[in-house]
Amino acid sequence: MGGDHAPAEIIKGAIEAAQTLDVDIVLVGDPDQMGDTGGLPVIACREVIDMHEDGAKAVRIKKDSSLVRAAEAVRDQKASCMISAGNTGATMASALLRMHRIEGVARPAIATPIPVPGSTPTVLIDAGANAECLAPWLVQFARMGAVLARARWGIVRPRVGLLSIGEEETKGTPLVKEAYGLLADPASSSGDFDFIGNVEGRDIMTSDVDVVVTDGFTGNVALKTLEGGLRFLTGKVLDAVSGFPDLLTALVPLASELDPDTHGGAVLLGVNGVCIISHGSSSARAIVNAVRVGRDSVERDLVGQLRAATSG
Amino acid sequence: MGGDHAPAEIIKGAIEAAQTLDVDIVLVGDPDQMGDTGGLPVIACREVIDMHEDGAKAVRIKKDSSLVRAAEAVRDQKASCMISAGNTGATMASALLRMHRIEGVARPAIATPIPVPGSTPTVLIDAGANAECLAPWLVQFARMGAVLARARWGIVRPRVGLLSIGEEETKGTPLVKEAYGLLADPASSSGDFDFIGNVEGRDIMTSDVDVVVTDGFTGNVALKTLEGGLRFLTGKVLDAVSGFPDLLTALVPLASELDPDTHGGAVLLGVNGVCIISHGSSSARAIVNAVRVGRDSVERDLVGQLRAATSG
Repeated sequence: MGGDHAPAEIIKGAIEAAQTLDVDIVLVGDPDQMGDTGGLPVIACREVIDMHEDGAKAVRIKKDSSLVRAAEAVRDQKASCMISAGNTGATMASALLRMHRIEGVARPAIATPIPVPGSTPTVLIDAGANAECLAPWLVQFARMGAVLARARWGIVRPRVGLLSIGEEETKGTPLVKEAYGLLADPASSSGDFDFIGNVEGRDIMTSDVDVVVTDGFTGNVALKTLEGGLRFLTGKVLDAVSGFPDLLTALVPLASELDPDTHGGAVLLGVNGVCIISHGSSSARAIVNAVRVGRDSVERDLVGQLRAATSG
Repeated sequence: MGGDHAPAEIIKGAIEAAQTLDVDIVLVGDPDQMGDTGGLPVIACREVIDMHEDGAKAVRIKKDSSLVRAAEAVRDQKASCMISAGNTGATMASALLRMHRIEGVARPAIATPIPVPGSTPTVLIDAGANAECLAPWLVQFARMGAVLARARWGIVRPRVGLLSIGEEETKGTPLVKEAYGLLADPASSSGDFDFIGNVEGRDIMTSDVDVVVTDGFTGNVALKTLEGGLRFLTGKVLDAVSGFPDLLTALVPLASELDPDTHGGAVLLGVNGVCIISHGSSSARAIVNAVRVGRDSVERDLVGQLRAATSG
C-alpha cells in the first residue's frame, strides 16, 4: 500500500516477480483498494500508514496496517521476507517491533547499495535508521555491512571505510575518532573484513571501498545529496543530448546502472528477518528487483550470517 | 605556493588577473621556486606548508610560510584580501590567528558555493571549518551565509534552510533540533533572511534554497560526496559521448557551470579580512575567478556587512 505509485505498480511488479522468479508472493493490503491481484494471495488488512506519518508512532496505533501485518507474517513464518516501498520509518519500526532485533545487535541499520557503474555497488550503512550513534554501533554496522557485501556480491573480504572529513585518524567528530580506534583493532573484524581507515564523501562512488560506515544522520545526508546531484545532472545531460537520439541509446546502460530501481533497494540489517526497503518512487521493475534481492537474501541465509557476525 | 599546480598555475592566473581585472596583485612565496612573476611584486618568504600537514600545528611552527605571511599582509593592510589554493586547514588557521575573528563571531565558517546551473549557486555553510558545532553557531552561520548570498549574488532576502534528514522539525540530531528552534525565532534573522525550515541533501543543488546551514562535518561530507558523484558521472557521460563531437560542444556550457574553477572557490566568513579558499586543483582560470570574487568582496565591504550582521 506504500510508495508513490502504490498499489498499482507494486502489484504489477509482484505479479511479474511471481511469474519470472520462481517465488511465492503474498500481498498485504486492503483488498478494496488493490484491484486485480492476478491471482496472488492476499493478507487482508484495513489500515495504511501514510508516507508522512511519524513511523514509530503510527506502527503503535495502526496495528492493522499493511506494514505491521507484513512484519507479523515474517515473524510468524508465513513469509520469508518483507518488502515495502512505503514510509521508511514505519517500515523500520514495524520490522523492529514485530521481528525484534537479532540478539546482540545494538541497533539495526539501513544498508543502501550505491551504484558504481563498472563495479560492485558500495554499501552505505547506516543510511538513515539511527540519527545518533555510539562508536560500538558503528563497529557492528561494519560487520553487518561486510556480511551483506559478501552475501550479495560475493566479496570475500570486503574493504570497510569509515566516513570522515580527512584520511588521518585525527580527523572528524569524537564519534568518528572513537570508532576509528575500535575498528583499527583487528579483533573488530575477526578477519571478516579489512578496515581501510577513513574515507571521504568522494570515495563512496568509487571501486576503492566496498562498505562505507557512518551514523544514520550523516549517511542519510550523503545519500540524498548524491541522489539530488545525480538526478539534477542527469536531467541537464538529457536536455543537452535531446537532439542526439543515437546518444540517448549510448547512455542507456549507464542510466540503467545508476537507476535505484535496478538495485532493488536498501536492506534493514539487524532484525530477525529479511526486510527490504524500496525507494518510495519504486516502479514495477524496482519491485521485481527487490523480490530478487529478497529471495537471494533468504536463500543465502543473510539473517543467519548476520547472527553469526554479531554474536559474542 | 599551495595547490596541486603551484606555483606555475597560480602565478599564471595572478598575472592574467592583474592584466584583466584592474587589481593590484602581490604574490607571497619563495622567490627561488617562483620563476618569472611577470613583474608582479613579491612578499618573499622561505617556508611552505605542505598539503598534508596538520594546518593548525604547521601555522604555529612555520611563521615564515606563504600562508602566514599572506594573512599578515591582510592584517597589516598591505593587502585587501588573501587567496590560497593550498592546505585548507592551514589557510583557516593562518587567517584566524593573524586576522583574528570578527568580534562577536563564535566560530568562522567556510561558505562554499554549490553550482546550480540556470540559477544562483547555493551557499553551503559550514563546509568544513568546524567538525563539531553548537546550535547558536549555526544561527551565526545562517546570518553570515545570508550576507554572502546578498553581497555576491544580490539576493535581497536569502532563503535559509537547515540541513537535516526530513522536513519535520522533529527530525535530525539534537543539534539540528536545537538549531531549528533558534532559527525559527524571528529575532534570529532580524528580517535579513527567511528561514524555510529543514532541507535535505537533495535540495542543495536546486533553486529552492539559497543558503544551506550545517555543521562542518556534515557539510564537508555532503560537499565531497557531491563532488565525487558529479565527477564520476561526468566522466562516464564523457566516455559515452566521445563518439559524438557535436555533443561535447553542446555540453560545454553545463560543464563550465559545474566546474568549481568557474566559481572562484569558497570564502572563510567571520575573520577580519577577506580570505578566499580555492580548490586544491585550481587552474589559472580558477585563480582569475578567485581574484574577481576577492575584489568584489572587498569592494562590497563583505567584512563590514558581516560585522554588522553578527554584532549584538
